[in-house]
Amino acid sequence: MREEKVFVFGHQSPDTDSICSAIVYTHLKKVLGLNAEPVRLGEINKETEYVLNYFEVEEPQLRDEVSEEVSQVILVDHNERQQSVSDLDKVQILEVIDHHRIANFETESPLYYRAEPVGCTTTILYKLFKEQQVEIEPKIAGLMLSAIISDTLLFKSPTCTPEDEKVAQELASIANVNLEEYGLDMLKAGADMQGKSIEE
Amino acid sequence: MREEKVFVFGHQSPDTDSICSAIVYTHLKKVLGLNAEPVRLGEINKETEYVLNYFEVEEPQLRDEVSEEVSQVILVDHNERQQSVSDLDKVQILEVIDHHRIANFETESPLYYRAEPVGCTTTILYKLFKEQQVEIEPKIAGLMLSAIISDTLLFKSPTCTPEDEKVAQELASIANVNLEEYGLDMLKAGADMQGKSIEE
Ligand SMILES: [Mn+2]
Ligand SMILES: [Mn+2]
Ligand SMILES: [Mn+2]
Ligand SMILES: [Mn+2]
Repeated sequence: MREEKVFVFGHQSPDTDSICSAIVYTHLKKVLGLNAEPVRLGEINKETEYVLNYFEVEEPQLRDEVSEEVSQVILVDHNERQQSVSDLDKVQILEVIDHHRIANFETESPLYYRAEPVGCTTTILYKLFKEQQVEIEPKIAGLMLSAIISDTLLFKSPTCTPEDEKVAQELASIANVNLEEYGLDMLKAGADMQGKSIEE
Repeated sequence: MREEKVFVFGHQSPDTDSICSAIVYTHLKKVLGLNAEPVRLGEINKETEYVLNYFEVEEPQLRDEVSEEVSQVILVDHNERQQSVSDLDKVQILEVIDHHRIANFETESPLYYRAEPVGCTTTILYKLFKEQQVEIEPKIAGLMLSAIISDTLLFKSPTCTPEDEKVAQELASIANVNLEEYGLDMLKAGADMQGKSIEE
């Protein structure tokens, strides 16, 4: 790790894509030599909790502000200022990986910005792993798959593309899970909001 | 060609990168099946004229407005609204390929946005050809090389990265030109600006 720490995070009120993309892209950037760390801008929802438990991955640390700890950040799964960290204007945005429209976004310097009109951020991350020729480990594949299932509601949302589905099939095989079965369990865990807060 | 026509263009007062990127990216998109056509938003400068003559490539047609002819556009080498076509708000921005900061840019829908902090748009286009596994023909390589030479002033500008230089070497070999010799001739043709009065 040669460089200063960089935080990687998704939007406020994080969904499964925002949390998993932060963890997964941090992993890729670390392999590529960046001193990256995933953080989250809000509480983890039940669905995401299920995912992190299932694949035995730690949740990112919570942050309200970032500028006292880092001077550079990477945004995943969002770009609009009002969805991001409160002190975004005090740090440099090094990269954005996203699948939403662009709005209320401005930088002072050139940056790496990668957006594609697909159903989920991790569908784009899948391509970045391939382009960088970094192997996707089963645990990482599981997180990426979970984000696609979540954002596309198991391929039923109108934002889902054939590419999301193809990537998800591939990831399910790497993660060694039954896509349909795992997907339904995961979505059910997210929908099941009553008793679970006691167990925490 | 299965789809409606899409215009591809760079910024107003076009430089060699804006003209060549429009031609080169149009070529790639056509190979990939899109009905693309390059246009330009202003007069071609002497340097670009030299480049197009050298590689025997036609200049794109001039447009002030685009929305009466197309409903979708692709921007290269710029993103800021005030540098773009006057009726940009009346069309859908399908893609942006650029190497500048992002500002005054907003879309209603998700899009393909590819920006990298390199010295020239065609350095990014080079990667897109590789990713799509489309061969770069000598003429196309010549245009891409010329844009890099122009934007980096033969690798002397502070915005030039090692990647720009590496890509330029590769392109020079495909285009079968002597990089230094061609580069100096090209820059000299641009510096030779007797007739030029409107801008700069
Ligand atoms: Mn999200
Ligand atoms: Mn998402
Ligand atoms: Mn330019
Ligand atoms: Mn340029």
